[in-house]
Amino acid sequence: MYELTMDLKTDSRTPLYEQIYSYIKKDIQSGRIARGEKLPSTRALSKHLEVSRSTAVLAYEQLLSEGFIESEPYRGFFAAQIGDLYHLEPVKEKEQKKEAREKKYRYDFTPNGVDLNSFPYQVWRKLSRDILMDDRTELFRSGNSQGEYGFRNAVCNYLYQARGVNCTPDQIIIGAGSDYLFMLLAMILGTHHKIAFEDPTYKQAYRLADSLSYERVPVSMDKDGIMVTELSKTDADIAYVTPSHQYPSGIIMPMKRRLELLRWAREHKGRYIVEDDYDSEFRYKGKPIPALQGYDRKEKVIYLGTFSKSIAPAIRLSYMVLPKPLLHIYHERYRFVNSTVSKVDQFIVQRFLEEGYYERHLNKMRALYKGRHDTLIEALKPLSDICRISGEHGGVHLLLTFEQGRQEEELILQAEKRGIRVYGLNDYRIRKDSTDKPTVLLGYANLSEEQLKSAAQILIECWGFSGRRPGIMI
Amino acid sequence: MYELTMDLKTDSRTPLYEQIYSYIKKDIQSGRIARGEKLPSTRALSKHLEVSRSTAVLAYEQLLSEGFIESEPYRGFFAAQIGDLYHLEPVKEKEQKKEAREKKYRYDFTPNGVDLNSFPYQVWRKLSRDILMDDRTELFRSGNSQGEYGFRNAVCNYLYQARGVNCTPDQIIIGAGSDYLFMLLAMILGTHHKIAFEDPTYKQAYRLADSLSYERVPVSMDKDGIMVTELSKTDADIAYVTPSHQYPSGIIMPMKRRLELLRWAREHKGRYIVEDDYDSEFRYKGKPIPALQGYDRKEKVIYLGTFSKSIAPAIRLSYMVLPKPLLHIYHERYRFVNSTVSKVDQFIVQRFLEEGYYERHLNKMRALYKGRHDTLIEALKPLSDICRISGEHGGVHLLLTFEQGRQEEELILQAEKRGIRVYGLNDYRIRKDSTDKPTVLLGYANLSEEQLKSAAQILIECWGFSGRRPGIMI
Repeated sequence: MYELTMDLKTDSRTPLYEQIYSYIKKDIQSGRIARGEKLPSTRALSKHLEVSRSTAVLAYEQLLSEGFIESEPYRGFFAAQIGDLYHLEPVKEKEQKKEAREKKYRYDFTPNGVDLNSFPYQVWRKLSRDILMDDRTELFRSGNSQGEYGFRNAVCNYLYQARGVNCTPDQIIIGAGSDYLFMLLAMILGTHHKIAFEDPTYKQAYRLADSLSYERVPVSMDKDGIMVTELSKTDADIAYVTPSHQYPSGIIMPMKRRLELLRWAREHKGRYIVEDDYDSEFRYKGKPIPALQGYDRKEKVIYLGTFSKSIAPAIRLSYMVLPKPLLHIYHERYRFVNSTVSKVDQFIVQRFLEEGYYERHLNKMRALYKGRHDTLIEALKPLSDICRISGEHGGVHLLLTFEQGRQEEELILQAEKRGIRVYGLNDYRIRKDSTDKPTVLLGYANLSEEQLKSAAQILIECWGFSGRRPGIMI
Repeated sequence: MYELTMDLKTDSRTPLYEQIYSYIKKDIQSGRIARGEKLPSTRALSKHLEVSRSTAVLAYEQLLSEGFIESEPYRGFFAAQIGDLYHLEPVKEKEQKKEAREKKYRYDFTPNGVDLNSFPYQVWRKLSRDILMDDRTELFRSGNSQGEYGFRNAVCNYLYQARGVNCTPDQIIIGAGSDYLFMLLAMILGTHHKIAFEDPTYKQAYRLADSLSYERVPVSMDKDGIMVTELSKTDADIAYVTPSHQYPSGIIMPMKRRLELLRWAREHKGRYIVEDDYDSEFRYKGKPIPALQGYDRKEKVIYLGTFSKSIAPAIRLSYMVLPKPLLHIYHERYRFVNSTVSKVDQFIVQRFLEEGYYERHLNKMRALYKGRHDTLIEALKPLSDICRISGEHGGVHLLLTFEQGRQEEELILQAEKRGIRVYGLNDYRIRKDSTDKPTVLLGYANLSEEQLKSAAQILIECWGFSGRRPGIMI
């Protein structure tokens, strides 16, 4: 019989039974223990290795459960045929092809920032620990394709209280990000539609609509948002809008325009409004205006929302509220499509909402962003004679519109030369026009008040006098 | 000045500062503390409430951070304007509309079962704890739309070693489930294709193809799988196949047929094979045959795989390996679509793979399922004279094919009357045909060996003699 000799490290962090298991496993894999060879009894093994009997038993049980050895009643343990067992060599990471290296900036005014230093790590750890606490098979069984009911109920309550959205949990579909929900919506609506987009708009959705082979038509905006008069002249039957805080202009659509928009939708059967309420959580003056969906009495509004802006981009949790006719189509024909969100994530965010953490987090972020918002506006005052600030009082970015004569690209380049990244409105325009006033976006979510002050100072230097002096200055 | 009086519970699990915070917050929300009203200094508060100074400071900091109070240098703390702060009432769960109640069965032979009692809960807890350990902002920043490189690298290593898949991490796209990846693939391929499906097939994919408005054509199978001769007669340019373990027939496609299939794909530009390798992890006889993708030298195979069967349905992690030409299209035009999988989940599974847990888990599940597989076959022996067993040696279900004369529905009903749920092959057939032999599927992943024995005994009773006696027996 095979004689096991191994030096066990009693001081190791790996338990003894684990060491014995690994040792025998290696010998079986290497063939040092041939198939069918008899192994010592647990008693003999424990005696031989001077370990407790239970340690030997544990080691054998592990080997049994993974199929490396077989037990025969009254005869003992034998090495199994392991030719067909998995044996995966750890392979070290391949060298990743470096993406074209990003330029380094001292300050980046990205309009899509989220301050992750304020992410509620401690609460998140606690909640996920609690949820994984016991061995709940239910946690890993495939779930409701629409999202877990309890979570949808929590989202429903939040949307009603915070956004005035009128719906039942049954109307809510949970998805791993707004892009996915748009793809699902495309199945429900079909692609034989023409979608009108605000111009400028959220390009991600605009590109996605194209990828889903929708016809698209841009519609101009005035100070109140999308121009319904122009919209009516198009043959679009779906309007994709961001009324609570237009992206990127920051315009908040007044009630009158909202009602015109709803009227447009009612005028023809099959018309719908997609309301993307992506960042309405952050308003610094007065209460947020309720969502358009809340005023819809004719089942015309498809409401989209996400936790990416309000909690964190990487948690991949968005929601869609379907009007009844589309909900019916979904239930009849597309409910078979499996959910894209893990139950664990749904349960974590459900408790985050239900136990008051979300309310606290929103108020905290709001206070934080408001401070940065106020600081940046104050710091930019010296530019007031050459540009107009807009998009304030909400969201996490401002717009600076300059008089013509200046070039948007030039302004961006001047800032870049001083190590500051700003973003041009042209990237968001569908139609470019020589009469467009040069406009740059300044996002402040990722910069501290101190950083905002010094960055603004530099912008004042390179823009303020660039009439008189060249853009490059030290 | 406002005089704070509250009774603090020193024995409560809620820390003192938290109690003070909640109390003042409630008074501000209720208006008991008017906007602009001055609050006691932290010193006065701590004296008054007989708590430490730092406790009072903590409470005020919390209130400040959430915007309930404001501090004015040298003047102290004042109640803020809170009209526009979030205040969400906890709402208790609405009564959920009960779905049409599921029939109760004593034994359910579902072919889609996964034994979740064997889910590695302890390891999962450990890994997620480790990953959430420190406040890593990077964890919640939006990630690579294709999936994190490190995770793709780990999947790549696994696929090469366990499945013989030839690819680089760059070719892998991670997605929240196979349904989503199919939707993404539809964008990459476009929908102007006709997809050939094995008949019988995996209906989920068949329905999804329809929802994505693909033309579909069924192709018959012989003992070696999909008949390439028949496939060639169709005008399909895409073939959706499950060669390693055909679903649901369990046929393992021999090499000769695989090469015929690859030849079919090479014959015309633009032809592709979608290889769904959904459950190849479980083979009970010999090594798993390498994936079809591994034999493809002409960039013709799109490989799909998932962790739903091998780990758990609810973790929503699948992967797709794109051939170079399609990868190019993806990079050029669709990389902007955001990832559907949270980074945390990706990191957990990455370490699960890299630290050997997956290998151990697979071997353990394989041993477990093999035991159930052998037990069920043994227990069904008495039926051998009236039906033929197939689909053995792999996967987690068997097929019993009966001679004609019997009706599939009748067999299912007879079992149902005795509290046993079995599944008819007709649910998987695209074309029904009177010459089809009645066939039932028996999945064994969710039943213990004891349960399988007693369930099999009952099936023998209600099927074995049902020629002579009526199906219902006590």
